[in-house]
Amino acid sequence: MNTSVAAPPDAPATDARWWSAECPAPDAGWADAALRRQAQLTKPPGSLGELETLAVRLASLQATATPGADRVWISVFAADHGVAAEGVSAFPQAVTGEMVRNFASGGAAVSVLARALGATLEVVNLGTVNDPGEIAGVRRAVIAPSTANFCEQPAMTDAQLQAALAAGARSVQNAVAARAQLFIGGEMGIGNTTSAAALACALLDAPASALAGAGTGLDGAGISHKAQVIERALARHAGNASALRLLACLGGFEIAALTGAYIAAAQSRLPVLVDGFIATAAALAAVRLNPGCRDWMLFAHRSHEQGHGALLQALSARPLLDLGLRLGEGSGAAVAVPLLRSACALHNGMATFAQAGVSTA
Amino acid sequence: MNTSVAAPPDAPATDARWWSAECPAPDAGWADAALRRQAQLTKPPGSLGELETLAVRLASLQATATPGADRVWISVFAADHGVAAEGVSAFPQAVTGEMVRNFASGGAAVSVLARALGATLEVVNLGTVNDPGEIAGVRRAVIAPSTANFCEQPAMTDAQLQAALAAGARSVQNAVAARAQLFIGGEMGIGNTTSAAALACALLDAPASALAGAGTGLDGAGISHKAQVIERALARHAGNASALRLLACLGGFEIAALTGAYIAAAQSRLPVLVDGFIATAAALAAVRLNPGCRDWMLFAHRSHEQGHGALLQALSARPLLDLGLRLGEGSGAAVAVPLLRSACALHNGMATFAQAGVSTA
Repeated sequence: MNTSVAAPPDAPATDARWWSAECPAPDAGWADAALRRQAQLTKPPGSLGELETLAVRLASLQATATPGADRVWISVFAADHGVAAEGVSAFPQAVTGEMVRNFASGGAAVSVLARALGATLEVVNLGTVNDPGEIAGVRRAVIAPSTANFCEQPAMTDAQLQAALAAGARSVQNAVAARAQLFIGGEMGIGNTTSAAALACALLDAPASALAGAGTGLDGAGISHKAQVIERALARHAGNASALRLLACLGGFEIAALTGAYIAAAQSRLPVLVDGFIATAAALAAVRLNPGCRDWMLFAHRSHEQGHGALLQALSARPLLDLGLRLGEGSGAAVAVPLLRSACALHNGMATFAQAGVSTA
Repeated sequence: MNTSVAAPPDAPATDARWWSAECPAPDAGWADAALRRQAQLTKPPGSLGELETLAVRLASLQATATPGADRVWISVFAADHGVAAEGVSAFPQAVTGEMVRNFASGGAAVSVLARALGATLEVVNLGTVNDPGEIAGVRRAVIAPSTANFCEQPAMTDAQLQAALAAGARSVQNAVAARAQLFIGGEMGIGNTTSAAALACALLDAPASALAGAGTGLDGAGISHKAQVIERALARHAGNASALRLLACLGGFEIAALTGAYIAAAQSRLPVLVDGFIATAAALAAVRLNPGCRDWMLFAHRSHEQGHGALLQALSARPLLDLGLRLGEGSGAAVAVPLLRSACALHNGMATFAQAGVSTA
């Protein structure tokens, strides 16, 4: 087992339980130092609200006096879903592969945002029915053309689950090698709000009607149908209780990759900024697999997708933004990055009362 | 009277009612074109939520197919308040002048944020008791060392009010000359949450207890005292009904300057991003003086300061951020600028379904 916490697992596939290795605790000493500095800056105490909290948390997670979010790594995991055969999406399944091309050629939302941020965008193809093949800028880590239809059988085998978790850990290795200060995971996969909602229902013991949403744009009848599909899947896999089994039964390759990435990032002391509904379902699975990873998670936004609120509540997460976003791809997290940068710039760049010769209260 | 809407008033002081000149309507044609483009971008319709709304509004306000927020102008207006003599602030009055120096030397929050944004920061000294004198980077537009104590008499004379409104319009002229795409107004002045709350109470016909907040950090007893001070002022000036008179009786030089700036910006077709509690009180006064200026206002954030919610509601404003900020200076608006930039980058830079060869729903 990989016991180092300073780097992600070197070869996660060789140890099937790498994801259970301990996550380090954030550094309380750096948090205290950051709090002391915040109290000296030329502003009324607390007047920068959650930006102060963010700066202190990043200082603690990055173990530094000068936290930063300049070097951002974004991995977008794409994969297809067998459950798409049940007619749960407003878009055809071919879109997953088409969007892989769009990510790589720079036209997708997250591509535009990554460029604007100067962030590295890694696109990971975990298996698409409409396979775009080898494309510059896309890492091929194909597990299968799609998961199985989880209304009929487990979405993936144990080996496929391990491969998906490891693919996420590999992205974190790449991010660490690039000296990233922040990791963002995104996802693309027609049908994946159905998979995420099913997984969330199982993890939270909630009914499908509470967590099934419009996804890419279902109407009321479509959402009802989607909830019925999820209920069938939950009934079929009712005997499975562990987060690992539920991830195999109901997850997607990209969802499991996000789960693996969040755990590996925490093991590597790399903060993550969690995106929307699907990413948060993966984050909940990660916390169930390895609770210590929760400390390394920041939450970007409250998605418009039905069910996100319940996931955020289960994680005691208070996201930074609430702008009605529901695109996925990591796009909401990318939109939130400038808030982290502002928090760090203020923390690092403001004058103290003493430096500026400003009177205190 | 200045009847041009393409540029701010050339000499506002020469026409005492320049602020009542018509504000142009936003361009509906550009809004329609932007909506059509949003529908073609490679994302489910509406999935970028308020970022889509923002891009469409900016396209309409800027009358362009490619809206932008790259060139941002920030004017911070500083002024002292006679009502500070009533002991309504946690900080001594000397801080106003000290902070003017801090703005100019780059150590204040808004200075740090302006630098990070590549925005122009104009500091305007409208009158401070602890006058820092001539400083590089500060525009002197001194009206008086402070307003009068509005518990005893009107805060300013009619001539002082006209000078303050004109000082704000002058900043807009400067912003337009610099080809700014967005105007942000900030404020600094010990005692100015008391002035803003008093003005808001008068404009909204609300009791002081509903709108008096902690400001820079009053405790419960301090807030009660502040509310009593405001009630005394409201009783003294009860005969005044017009927004113009209320601004003279209860406002501050920096609040009136913000009011003048918001109106002049609308007259000049320059969108403004309104900051927190004090800026929003000035925005409400501006809308009462000239309702057409409302269309040109975007709202950055929901302040932690008691009373901001009532002002936002009166303006039917839904701000972008809710991060517990309560610093002023324009800092909350500066923090929100990257959201506008992201909205514009997505609108201008994403591929259409046709360009990317992605299937539609």
